[in-house]
Amino acid sequence: MKKIIIVCCMIFSYIFSYGESFEIITLGSDGGVNDGNLSSYLLKGNKDTNYVGLDAGTLLPGIKKTLEKNNFTSIKFPENTEWTKEGYIFREKIKGYFISHAHLDHISGLVISSTEDNKKPIYGVESTIKNLKDTVFNWKLWPNFGNEGSGFKLGQYEYLILDPLKEMNVKETSLKVKAFPLSHSNHESSMFLFNNHENYLAYYGDVGSDRVEKSNLLEKTFIEIAPLIKAKKLKAIMMEVSYGNEREEKELFGHLTPDLLNEEMDKLAKYVGKENLKGLNIIIIHIKPSLKNNDNVRGKIKEQLENSNKYNINYFYPVQGEKLIF
Amino acid sequence: MKKIIIVCCMIFSYIFSYGESFEIITLGSDGGVNDGNLSSYLLKGNKDTNYVGLDAGTLLPGIKKTLEKNNFTSIKFPENTEWTKEGYIFREKIKGYFISHAHLDHISGLVISSTEDNKKPIYGVESTIKNLKDTVFNWKLWPNFGNEGSGFKLGQYEYLILDPLKEMNVKETSLKVKAFPLSHSNHESSMFLFNNHENYLAYYGDVGSDRVEKSNLLEKTFIEIAPLIKAKKLKAIMMEVSYGNEREEKELFGHLTPDLLNEEMDKLAKYVGKENLKGLNIIIIHIKPSLKNNDNVRGKIKEQLENSNKYNINYFYPVQGEKLIF
Repeated sequence: MKKIIIVCCMIFSYIFSYGESFEIITLGSDGGVNDGNLSSYLLKGNKDTNYVGLDAGTLLPGIKKTLEKNNFTSIKFPENTEWTKEGYIFREKIKGYFISHAHLDHISGLVISSTEDNKKPIYGVESTIKNLKDTVFNWKLWPNFGNEGSGFKLGQYEYLILDPLKEMNVKETSLKVKAFPLSHSNHESSMFLFNNHENYLAYYGDVGSDRVEKSNLLEKTFIEIAPLIKAKKLKAIMMEVSYGNEREEKELFGHLTPDLLNEEMDKLAKYVGKENLKGLNIIIIHIKPSLKNNDNVRGKIKEQLENSNKYNINYFYPVQGEKLIF
Repeated sequence: MKKIIIVCCMIFSYIFSYGESFEIITLGSDGGVNDGNLSSYLLKGNKDTNYVGLDAGTLLPGIKKTLEKNNFTSIKFPENTEWTKEGYIFREKIKGYFISHAHLDHISGLVISSTEDNKKPIYGVESTIKNLKDTVFNWKLWPNFGNEGSGFKLGQYEYLILDPLKEMNVKETSLKVKAFPLSHSNHESSMFLFNNHENYLAYYGDVGSDRVEKSNLLEKTFIEIAPLIKAKKLKAIMMEVSYGNEREEKELFGHLTPDLLNEEMDKLAKYVGKENLKGLNIIIIHIKPSLKNNDNVRGKIKEQLENSNKYNINYFYPVQGEKLIF
């Protein structure tokens, strides 16, 4: 009887997970200001048992919060391990970090907790890896935990440079990834396009609108993802909206507002057709909290996006410890 | 009647505050690992209304926690301000940051929240300020919020170099300060000796024991503070103990254990006399959490220090949001 129940459960769970391709856990949701909750996500393919980090502004406080919310359901904790659950996930279940660019709010958690981490790769485009070597793991800000760069190399992190537009395998997972350059004020940022057996997820690091940035790099990524959206293979886009619409354009510092995201969606609609944007999953990330009275930026951005959602996009606004499945 | 009660309260509060010289608030207590609770303290003189930051690993989450614990009792919040209480304290009541050295766990909060901060000074010895300019506020890791360094200078923070051993005034407070160099593995760290009308407080940044570091810099600071201890003018010492005694000496990376602190106290006793160490207030900071099962480093350090306290020192182990008055 017990066996039959177990088999039934397995069949049900297979049926309900059919079509699901990615699990995303929010370790940090804020686009600055509050250390302890900065841009950082875990991603895994539906059949995988290992995660990768998408940026790493905050790690351990996010893992703790996710455990509190019982959202690490896929992890089987070994008995007789010397590590806490938090330590086990951090060291053993995150098999590398994808850093979109090396601004501190995207790497602080990785650096701070590096003293307790396991050997693993750090993936990024060439400019990101160069900044990590020159300005982070340089024995001035922090010991050199990398396998390259200045002074003695502790060798815990292997730098893996992503060749833009060339798909490569993500170690110890079923994922493949391709990187695209983005314009973030005077800084190069990147988009990572993950491929899990022909299901895709696009993670955009910090980015300004092409018009404000005088760039065409966002549009170039849209040309790449358009056929995937048409074919219903792009399961979700993770994209920043840092400020509300009232923020002046000259004060954006390479970030988006709801209006500017809509401007970019108009461009995307040209490539995929308006009807194909309906139901597209977009996860809003990097919302910048305010220290002003009665200034709920998260609520404001949500309202502004929902009130101008002419393509019927599905927006998500995950907070620390939340799990999303697509 | 109301006036009499108010006057009585004032007299009582004066009597009870007599001899108290410093208020210390813990914004972050950990020596690494958990971003959101990293080395960071607020200090103010008993008659002052403004604080200064002693290192700045974590700022806003610490201010939030202190507000939750109702420990900002001396602050009178203005009506009709555009800022939240958290924002008001952060922007208006912290009048500068003293950075002991520019390792990320001592500056992360300052950098992350700099986008919302007010104009104020950053104090440090020359090597600290140089590292902040070269490796932090350099337009690679973070925009240049300083008044010196590379590229366009946003000028929000004025770098003030502390000339070792020369006392200088701390702006917008009644405090004076003198800096002393310390040895922290291959890095220069510093001790700040604050003077509030001839009452003193010594804040030590990360430091290894003289024997392990092959240095005499800790001993030199002891020679300086010895007469203040004998005269009962040194109200408290803030000193790191990062690891428990079981940590091997070759794995200390410029930090102290309870045994090594005791070794240093033996040296201090030579200069002040054993009897004068009795009742000395030492605040233990920078305890490094562990990710191992049943490994309560804070509890262990406390036990190890209390069980070997041959000079009857008063040890304190403040956590985030806690207030101490000496």
